[in-house]
Amino acid sequence: MEFKLFYEEYFPFWNKLTKQDKEYLCENSSVAYFEKEQAVHDNTGCSGLFIVKSGRLRLYMISEEGKEITLYRLSPGDICMLSASCVLQSISFDVYVDAEVPSECYVINGLAFKKVSERVLEVKNYALEIALGRFSDVMWIMQQIVFMSMDKRVAIFLLDEITENKTDVVTLTHEQIARHLGTAREVVTRMLKHFSADGIVEVSRKGIKIIDKKKLQDIAY
Amino acid sequence: MEFKLFYEEYFPFWNKLTKQDKEYLCENSSVAYFEKEQAVHDNTGCSGLFIVKSGRLRLYMISEEGKEITLYRLSPGDICMLSASCVLQSISFDVYVDAEVPSECYVINGLAFKKVSERVLEVKNYALEIALGRFSDVMWIMQQIVFMSMDKRVAIFLLDEITENKTDVVTLTHEQIARHLGTAREVVTRMLKHFSADGIVEVSRKGIKIIDKKKLQDIAY
Repeated sequence: MEFKLFYEEYFPFWNKLTKQDKEYLCENSSVAYFEKEQAVHDNTGCSGLFIVKSGRLRLYMISEEGKEITLYRLSPGDICMLSASCVLQSISFDVYVDAEVPSECYVINGLAFKKVSERVLEVKNYALEIALGRFSDVMWIMQQIVFMSMDKRVAIFLLDEITENKTDVVTLTHEQIARHLGTAREVVTRMLKHFSADGIVEVSRKGIKIIDKKKLQDIAY
Repeated sequence: MEFKLFYEEYFPFWNKLTKQDKEYLCENSSVAYFEKEQAVHDNTGCSGLFIVKSGRLRLYMISEEGKEITLYRLSPGDICMLSASCVLQSISFDVYVDAEVPSECYVINGLAFKKVSERVLEVKNYALEIALGRFSDVMWIMQQIVFMSMDKRVAIFLLDEITENKTDVVTLTHEQIARHLGTAREVVTRMLKHFSADGIVEVSRKGIKIIDKKKLQDIAY
């Protein structure tokens, strides 16, 4: 019942489904809880669709040497489609998903969703639209990597963090920031020293406090 | 008549269209010829869909400073969907397309295709699938940029070039290769000097001749 009420509101295609398909999707749904940093999807098969109820998921790529880069984050109300690779035949790359903070998700079994998407074109369409929308996020990351200097990228990252968390302190370690940006810890540390010398941030054991947001924005945009 | 015969074979959705929609798409089709390096789509609005008949198109991003990076190429039989931004509402990034060699294309007006895609879900589905398929190409480029050293990237680029052109000589300048890879000319020149010293390539005014493909593959993969 919980799922049915939620899906009615959530999925634009819901009223195109037969009663049977609605029931089928609900029967193949579950609730999952993830601890901070717990793996949600590790690219082994079709984990399913995750709708974030609370918390935040992070989608990233990983190299053979274990180097990471964050592609985007999913907040409450967002749906993770790339973890349901069986639904999207045209996607052929590997992504990993984990929980950045304790998170609760509704999970729909990937194969069940696939079956319905093959019967109802509107469902297929929805899945494709969602996945394609994320293409734009990834292109923005790519533009940053290729075209922007590291000071701009660190500035954008810090601004995104404080906006997302509604605070002026970023509590991530330099190592964690480096992993988000796909670079080395030393590079982040050096950049933060510059920002600190310019009176933009204050680096302490508690984290990175943004003290001149205006200057940081000037660097970022 | 020319378009109708071609589209019947080309588009998997063709038999789902009404006679009127078929005619409408054909009436809104044209043939276009592009010189080498001529712009096909410069991101001002919805240029339309380009189906490559002969030649080769290149899709790339460009920074405010004019720095470029090649995302992928389109060969005969391929269709360019990202140049029809009006069809794909979920795409919000800017791409440029030009002809790498003299090219002939069938062009379908973007707004006409959009109208049909709104009437016939199979058409919308087709457009989304094609665009999403390119997401994988872009992710591959991104993985190269983030995770691979420049020697690997230059090696992969040279191997792709000789495979694509069925020759063992790459006639691009160092500057052009640098633009494809989103790096500086000096970086490419330095890398080719290394490859040359290792007996992998021979650099002359005629171009870059691959003399040890095996070694190049060892670097690339």
